[in-house]
Order: sequence, then structure tokens, then C-alpha cells
Amino acid sequence: MLYFIGLGLGDAKDITVRGLEIVKQCDRVYLEHYTSILTCGKEELEILYGREVILADRDMVEQSADTILEGAKESDIAFLVVGDPFGATTHTDLVLRAREQGIPHRVVHNASIMNAIGCTGLQLYNFGETVSIPFWTENWKPDSFYDKIMKNRDSGQHTLCLLDIKVKEQSEENLIKGRKIFEPPRFMSTQQAAQQLLEIVVNKEQERGTGSVHLKPDSKVVCVARVGTETQKLLTCSLLTASQTDLGPPLHSLVIPGVLHDLEADALEMWKS
Amino acid sequence: MLYFIGLGLGDAKDITVRGLEIVKQCDRVYLEHYTSILTCGKEELEILYGREVILADRDMVEQSADTILEGAKESDIAFLVVGDPFGATTHTDLVLRAREQGIPHRVVHNASIMNAIGCTGLQLYNFGETVSIPFWTENWKPDSFYDKIMKNRDSGQHTLCLLDIKVKEQSEENLIKGRKIFEPPRFMSTQQAAQQLLEIVVNKEQERGTGSVHLKPDSKVVCVARVGTETQKLLTCSLLTASQTDLGPPLHSLVIPGVLHDLEADALEMWKS
Repeated sequence: MLYFIGLGLGDAKDITVRGLEIVKQCDRVYLEHYTSILTCGKEELEILYGREVILADRDMVEQSADTILEGAKESDIAFLVVGDPFGATTHTDLVLRAREQGIPHRVVHNASIMNAIGCTGLQLYNFGETVSIPFWTENWKPDSFYDKIMKNRDSGQHTLCLLDIKVKEQSEENLIKGRKIFEPPRFMSTQQAAQQLLEIVVNKEQERGTGSVHLKPDSKVVCVARVGTETQKLLTCSLLTASQTDLGPPLHSLVIPGVLHDLEADALEMWKS
Repeated sequence: MLYFIGLGLGDAKDITVRGLEIVKQCDRVYLEHYTSILTCGKEELEILYGREVILADRDMVEQSADTILEGAKESDIAFLVVGDPFGATTHTDLVLRAREQGIPHRVVHNASIMNAIGCTGLQLYNFGETVSIPFWTENWKPDSFYDKIMKNRDSGQHTLCLLDIKVKEQSEENLIKGRKIFEPPRFMSTQQAAQQLLEIVVNKEQERGTGSVHLKPDSKVVCVARVGTETQKLLTCSLLTASQTDLGPPLHSLVIPGVLHDLEADALEMWKS
């Protein structure tokens, strides 16, 4: 059996009781660590589980899936994913490959930012399409996420913006020379995301329009950091303030509210600094 | 401290390790049981927790919140919610009331159908607004959810349809006579939801239009039952087949796909009975 087990958002203890029971009795335990990031070390997991945890990077999952699946017909393999196993990535490739080989799978769900963002007090069913905001470079400044935010706002809907994570990046030089030397991981902050949004808003006003759904420097946003952990921080402020405020260590996400119901507005008042 | 603790989707063991630790050391433990439904008995929770669990119905939470909050400044109170604490309802009233009284709160997140629906293989960020399908009666057949589904499909987005739950309903007679006698709980099945959708599609074709985003009896839907439990069932079929298929005990949800990416289409093939 191949078990997909969500680890939730915080540290080792955010696994479910069932998930922990399964991990303890599995023959091999892999940790997917390229689409999301553990806020605790692998060692902390190993202490709680009382066993070795094998790190599975993108190369391993995409190119050596058979290594992961080896023996899964007769024995139990756990594939751990931060958040919910099917939150950011569906891992459909791995599921399909397992099925081809006649290996059954089961899922142990957990919280992910996609539902935990409800902690802001905004109703989940009032959210429209989720968008991703990528790191801009000098020459590459895609802004199609802005149009999606506008489309949601046009329908009165909130937008959850997932912020870019760069893991195992190679510098251009190392890439060209084929050296597997990786840059330190980078996580976009709400401050950076707000700065990019401001640049779109301020510099492209003419091209984008200024109607009421469009963002302005004083538009209300909700910055969230480390949701689900002890150091969680929520801040309701203007886009301009967000672009000037450091919320500390990752992971961050940004919410652009649409039309607020009374209770939602009351809730957002709670996070005003 | 007031702890909001998600119980996840399955049985008692779907609480997180952290959540269980907190419940065990709290002075009082309440279980909110009107917006969602436990798939196990309260007794099963009490055995795992080693302590009493107090059922909190809507009346209690809305009218006697102070009873729940009593002593929470000095001691720890747990408020358990099936799924994620801020999934279906934000419980903002309770949070605001606690803050007014200077009682801090913390949230222990968990899976809810809002993110666990990713188990279908459909990407969460491709979902548009979530809709609720209510039980129709002889004389009351609201269908505004259909327009929302069409709006999502028009943008290529999937729609998660949450299906009606009726708990603590009173018959008209008992309501008039002021007798607190309640009907057995009712849970809408994917079969009933599909039947209501078919009625809209077939009877209102002229009024609603027949463009490509509109549903037809042979449109593809994904029926899900008991997500996150041992008896979970997923079925990809036509709307017509869904209206004729019994997926067994609750809870059910229905997904109306929008535009499918290749991997999403491959994933849905897995659930073709």
C-alpha cells in the first residue's frame, strides 16, 4: 500500500494520530520536499516517528518513482507531504504509476493553506480562483496574476495569492557548467508581493484601468505569515503598508479581499496591527 | 485560552497529535455539531481523549456563548469542529466575543472538504467559487447555484458543490406548536443533487441556454462520498448516471469540472467505476 500522508502546516506534531500510526508501521518513509517547506527539521520528524525519513526531491519523484514504489505491493510505503497531499500538487503521476503496477493507495488528509486561510475570518466559499505570484527578475515581470485578481474582485470574490518558493535553484553559471550546486532557498514575503503589486498598480494604471475593482495603494489587503504555527501573524493593512512591512520568517501568503460581508469586515478589524 | 481544534474528515484518529495533546489538558471540551457531522460517535472521541465531550448545538453557540467562554481567561477550553475550524463557518462571533473578554485564542487546523477534494486529482487552484445545493421542496426550488456553476465553467473552472445537511429540523406542526421535537438528520446525496441539476438542465433549457458551458445529461461530473474515510468512494460519470447511482452513506459532495488539463483528465479516468 502506498500512503500519501499530509503533515499539516506547523511542526512534527501537526500530523494526525492516524497518520502517525501509519508512518510508524510503514517499511519506508519518504518526505516530498520541493513543493512546500517544513517549518521543522527532518530530524524532528524522525524523533517523533522513531525511524528514518528519506528526502524525496523533484528529481527523485519525477525520475525515480519506481524506487519509491519498490515493494509497495507487499509492504507499506509512506509518502509524506507538507500541508495536504493534494494541496499544491496532486502527485497524480505517482498515483497513476502506482495504479499501473497494481499498488493501491490511500490518503491521510491534513490542513493546507488552501483551507487554513479561513483563519482570517474570510469565508472560504467567497474565494475565487487562487493565484500564484512569481518572483520577478530584471527582465521578466509577468503580471497575469493581476488580471485574475481583478476578475475575482469583479465577482466580489477574495483572492488567495500563493507566493513563490525557489528551492534547489541553480545560478546561471552553475546551470551552464552543469554543476549541481544550488542556491539557498528563497521564499517570497508579503512585502515583496505587495511591492510587485504596487508596481503594477502605479506604473500600469493607464493600461490596466482605475475602476473600483482595481487596486490602489490604499486598497485593503490581508498579509498572513506562518499560518498554523505558534508564531502565526495576520495583518490587515493597505497595499502600501504591506509593501513596507516585514512579517518575519516564511511562509507568507497574501489575500486580496473582494466584497466583505459584515462579519468578515469585523474579523479583518482584529488583524489591524 | 480558547482553542479551536479541527477534527478532520474521518473518525476520532483524524485529530492531529498536537490537537490531541491540547484536548487532553483542557478543562472543558465542546464539540460543535451543527455545521458538520462526525462519522464516529461522541463516545469514540471520549475514549481517545479520556474525558467528557460536551455537545454544543447552534442554540448553545449562538445564545450561550458565555457558558462556553466561562473561565477561559484562567483555564483552557477546547472547541472542536469537524473538518477545519474555519472551513464551513468562521465562528467569527465566538472569536470576537472571546477577544472582547480578553480571552486569547489559537487554532489547530485540519483537513476539510474544501482542500481534501484535491483527492479527485483536480487542481485546487482551478476551482472557482464553491456553491451549496439546498434540498428542494414541492414549492421551493431555488437554482441560483446553477448560475454560479456556469460562471465558473465559463472561466474554465471546476465547481465544488457542497450538499445540504438538515440537522435538528422541526416539522411544520412541531414548529407551530412550539414542540422541541426534531426530525432525523438528512444529508443530500450526489444522486439527489444530480437529480435537481438534471431538472434544471432539462426543464429550463430554453430559459437557461444550451451553450457549451451549460450542463447536459451526458456532462461529466465527479461524485465523492465519505472523503478521507476508509470507505471513501469517487465516481466519474455523466450527470444522468449520477442521478441514478447510490453512493451509500453520507457525507457526499459533487464536483462539476471545468476545463480539464491532461493530468486532471487522466486522474478522473481512475474513478470511472
